[in-house]
Amino acid sequence: MRMLEERILRDGIVMEKDVLKVDSFLNHQMDVSLFRAMAEEWYRLYADCGINKILTIEASGIGIACITALVFQCPVVFAKKTKTRNIAGDVYRTQVQSFTHNTCYDVIVSKRFLGPGDRLLLVDDFLANGAALSGLMDLSDMAGAQVIGAGIAIEKAYQPGGRLLRERGLRIESLARIARMDENGTMEFIS
Amino acid sequence: MRMLEERILRDGIVMEKDVLKVDSFLNHQMDVSLFRAMAEEWYRLYADCGINKILTIEASGIGIACITALVFQCPVVFAKKTKTRNIAGDVYRTQVQSFTHNTCYDVIVSKRFLGPGDRLLLVDDFLANGAALSGLMDLSDMAGAQVIGAGIAIEKAYQPGGRLLRERGLRIESLARIARMDENGTMEFIS
Repeated sequence: MRMLEERILRDGIVMEKDVLKVDSFLNHQMDVSLFRAMAEEWYRLYADCGINKILTIEASGIGIACITALVFQCPVVFAKKTKTRNIAGDVYRTQVQSFTHNTCYDVIVSKRFLGPGDRLLLVDDFLANGAALSGLMDLSDMAGAQVIGAGIAIEKAYQPGGRLLRERGLRIESLARIARMDENGTMEFIS
Repeated sequence: MRMLEERILRDGIVMEKDVLKVDSFLNHQMDVSLFRAMAEEWYRLYADCGINKILTIEASGIGIACITALVFQCPVVFAKKTKTRNIAGDVYRTQVQSFTHNTCYDVIVSKRFLGPGDRLLLVDDFLANGAALSGLMDLSDMAGAQVIGAGIAIEKAYQPGGRLLRERGLRIESLARIARMDENGTMEFIS
């Protein structure tokens, strides 16, 4: 998606250690008019798929997911990160590894909000190793919900998540796929 | 706001210990069409105030804030909760006490995204003791930004936050103000 790629080139900052900082428009300050354009692109791609719910993960996925839900005219459910191991048994629970923070955390979603009738679009801001997206697939499987596909803003295509999840059969529509980048200003997209 | 009050009466669940569970439409599963109606009500109330940015706090404020920003045609900034005491000095930082979880946490916002030119609407899902909202005011003050007012979905009006913050001069537009509630089905709103 040209608009997102141009925005990354203009406002994104490549840091050491393979970090792309897009906090001026995507995940700290948020440009909701950009989010709407992204949502409309996902709607164009998934319009005829009968999606009835958006599933995302806190925190930075929530804004994109809500704008997307407005375009799809359906509700959002966001999976919650938690450190509490034992709470009430009315949740689906899985583990997600964070490569950024080199830690593991549990994510949960209430059993009341995911079920066999659901046809889900998974939405998130980044796809790199695929841990978060994989966690959302686990929760969907536990609920018996059907995952129609994923809508990702930025995919680091040189990391394995996208390939591995597509091999598992997941349809992934990433709006900007970075082939490579470095601190000296190199940034190449896969079109 | 009648639509929100009716939704609380229909789908809200009063738990022991003064907890109102509205996770089926507000802060776990999210009804974005309701959020848009709420946003339009805030826009009606604040339309002529020159608001140029929405400030909220993760996680459950983000969805409401993004839909509100779409209506106001401005960006959102969300303050991040953090446990790390010392990170780079390019953030404003304050402490927020959580009465729900009986703990304290730091919230931060990047100095790049709040400044003297900003005229802010603070948005959050709940107002009870006012700790989160007060934290957002602190961050705004540090940045020299002007807080025009707050947009709150549900105010527990029998708790002191709303009164204390209004006494400090903050304009607060709460769309549902609960005068009292209990597990037996009592729920009274201040109109």
